[in-house]
Amino acid sequence: MQFHLNGVKGAGNPLDHQFEGTEEPDFQTSLPAEVDVLIVGAGPAGQLLGAQLARFPEITTRIVEAQHGPLLVGNADGLQCRTLEIFQAFGFVEKVLKEAYWVNETTFWSPTEDAKGLKRSGRIRDTEENLSEMPHVILNQARMQDFWLQAMKSTPTRLEPSYSRKLHSLELPAAPSDSVKVVLERTDTARAGQTETVRARYVVGCDGARSLVRKSLGLQLKGDSQNQVWGVLDALVVTDFPDVRLKTAIHSASAGSIVLIPREGGYQLQKLEQHERVADKKITKEALVNQAKQIFHPFTFDVREIAHWSVYEVGQRLTDHFDDVPKAEREDRDPRVFITGDACHTHSAKAGQGMNVSMNDSFNLGWKLASVLRGQSPPKLLHTYTEERHAIAELLIELDTKMSRMFAAKPTSDKQAAKDSDGNTVDPADFQAYFEEQG
Amino acid sequence: MQFHLNGVKGAGNPLDHQFEGTEEPDFQTSLPAEVDVLIVGAGPAGQLLGAQLARFPEITTRIVEAQHGPLLVGNADGLQCRTLEIFQAFGFVEKVLKEAYWVNETTFWSPTEDAKGLKRSGRIRDTEENLSEMPHVILNQARMQDFWLQAMKSTPTRLEPSYSRKLHSLELPAAPSDSVKVVLERTDTARAGQTETVRARYVVGCDGARSLVRKSLGLQLKGDSQNQVWGVLDALVVTDFPDVRLKTAIHSASAGSIVLIPREGGYQLQKLEQHERVADKKITKEALVNQAKQIFHPFTFDVREIAHWSVYEVGQRLTDHFDDVPKAEREDRDPRVFITGDACHTHSAKAGQGMNVSMNDSFNLGWKLASVLRGQSPPKLLHTYTEERHAIAELLIELDTKMSRMFAAKPTSDKQAAKDSDGNTVDPADFQAYFEEQG
Repeated sequence: MQFHLNGVKGAGNPLDHQFEGTEEPDFQTSLPAEVDVLIVGAGPAGQLLGAQLARFPEITTRIVEAQHGPLLVGNADGLQCRTLEIFQAFGFVEKVLKEAYWVNETTFWSPTEDAKGLKRSGRIRDTEENLSEMPHVILNQARMQDFWLQAMKSTPTRLEPSYSRKLHSLELPAAPSDSVKVVLERTDTARAGQTETVRARYVVGCDGARSLVRKSLGLQLKGDSQNQVWGVLDALVVTDFPDVRLKTAIHSASAGSIVLIPREGGYQLQKLEQHERVADKKITKEALVNQAKQIFHPFTFDVREIAHWSVYEVGQRLTDHFDDVPKAEREDRDPRVFITGDACHTHSAKAGQGMNVSMNDSFNLGWKLASVLRGQSPPKLLHTYTEERHAIAELLIELDTKMSRMFAAKPTSDKQAAKDSDGNTVDPADFQAYFEEQG
Repeated sequence: MQFHLNGVKGAGNPLDHQFEGTEEPDFQTSLPAEVDVLIVGAGPAGQLLGAQLARFPEITTRIVEAQHGPLLVGNADGLQCRTLEIFQAFGFVEKVLKEAYWVNETTFWSPTEDAKGLKRSGRIRDTEENLSEMPHVILNQARMQDFWLQAMKSTPTRLEPSYSRKLHSLELPAAPSDSVKVVLERTDTARAGQTETVRARYVVGCDGARSLVRKSLGLQLKGDSQNQVWGVLDALVVTDFPDVRLKTAIHSASAGSIVLIPREGGYQLQKLEQHERVADKKITKEALVNQAKQIFHPFTFDVREIAHWSVYEVGQRLTDHFDDVPKAEREDRDPRVFITGDACHTHSAKAGQGMNVSMNDSFNLGWKLASVLRGQSPPKLLHTYTEERHAIAELLIELDTKMSRMFAAKPTSDKQAAKDSDGNTVDPADFQAYFEEQG
């Protein structure tokens, strides 16, 4: 009989599902010759999908990842309410709620009348009331990925990513009964260049903006050809700016705009997303810091340590479909290869949506793959993935385009500075209203 | 710089404190010759105290335990709001909240007018409103002790109990500057009879109702000499009794009384504390089940599996003081040896207080020991432990005596059965009111 919670037989952690099998697999040394689902990429989208499929002992799932081990320093960090609801479904939301910074409110700062200072021009509830029982939080991606690794390890199949493997080639099946043939190349020095062949019922590319799965399908990211370049600074900053522990958007008179995002933890490790368009990708971190100082002026901005900084260039782009079946052929055949997240849609980090939309892509696909593989649903169900998620990606790109333009524009209350080179301006009140509407 | 939460330097679990030292101690092979605090007994009281002191790298703490490893099957299971507040202070309350059964309400059943059936005579909020933000929950002791072990392992000193050691002798210091000399005897077969000597600044006996530390101090549990015998059954039961997933007190017409306590987990593993006084300690589990069937009648009561059962005999007893200093000598010397929990007060399980009061004893003592050992407070502070906790134990015994009498009495609405042998009766409304008052 159970002494503890659901699913435990005997001693051990009652939150771990019982391992279903005789010997736990070695995920690193080799891969099975045949799998049901091969996931390419162990980012947020790939790990969520892995955690979902790993719950079914009758489905053989593997995740391959070109990196040599788990992510140590995060890239993204915004987690929306809906994403936390997903974490709840996977049983680890309480860990995220405990560690994360809760974005309960957002403030807006814009130039004073004389354009010499900054004043707080707005303060709003960050998330629309009654949207969710969960808050919007900030937790760095590396820590969140730890939780996914733990979630996979607690399943009956004990799944973990198989590291040091990148996609070499992918061959679509000639007939529906055939498998997708995937050749993987080792990326670790000891085995560099060695290849492994895996035949998979389904392949899912969660391999980011430079997705090799997307390329192997001949799909292209289409859209905005004129990229914008943005700077990001993760820094420990000492400042007398009053809203330093709140998410804050600052539109300065002429030095540009910045979004300040407090990070989890007791120290003032801040994530500063500097949304001023920077001159080019060769900008230095000193230049980023200098620009931030100008935006914060007349408040002090003393950078004590920089944990991470980057300059990124990204356009709003989208593939035509998120699987291997063009729209015209949907009646004729069912999809076998899918792409999720950044592999099929790219955008800036402005709306704090990227990691969330990627995981939601996978969450949409995961149960469908499981249902089809277990014979509960016909394979044509899988067409609904691209149908549903492509529409969401279009909405996201629309949101991101508008937000990027608003961030880059100069505030209209700025009476001293000229309009920016594109002649764009934004009324801070409009910006705030738009922000509020989008949550 | 930190990438994660408070206190982490580098990779790893950010909730673990950094280990302060060069090599993690081996707690099992041997004990240090000198320690600051020696805790005897790794039950709830001993583990809480260990977790508290282990946070201070400058204090050397060891816990010795006669058993050979962690507890696997729990004895107690009721956790009061105040105890959950303590778990919050130690950083693991969210785990308990997630796994435990929440006792939000309690119902009362008593005989119908014709004494042939049972009717629900009351339904109350279990915990007084605004008492705490935490609920009253049920989680078996073995699982709770897992959390304490994890909490100790996360401290900068990585404390764990040193198993297979029982107290052999304890010698009080001749002068305040001397140590308490403790001789321990190994209880594991391989080393049976071997002894170890540890000199400790302070010794705390958390070694239960048969405390050897108490005996070595010459203290006696005084009080009720006429013990009552009670039966407890942890069982998987199939029943058509409607309140099977609620904490319920049933006073039957003539078969006795029972408290039904739902357990954590998705299956109907129930803890049934059968509070009818049973005939003697030699009663069988079949007799316990049979009596429960009679109490539940006319509802079905089909026991599918018994995880654990016991018959226990306990009186309400208390020692004069909880340390080595009689009241008359408090002005002259400061205490060096303490006893906590069941070592200094015993009572029935009726009020669901035992484990809670024991941990609260330790929580009262822990910060005082740390404060004195770190030179922040004078040693006379330690007298306040016995002063404060003895008063609480007296209250507990008063509560327990009254509740035990009420449970054992027959309901006054029982028109057919004679009064019990002591001539006691209880009005179910009085019982409910008293229960409500005590939370």
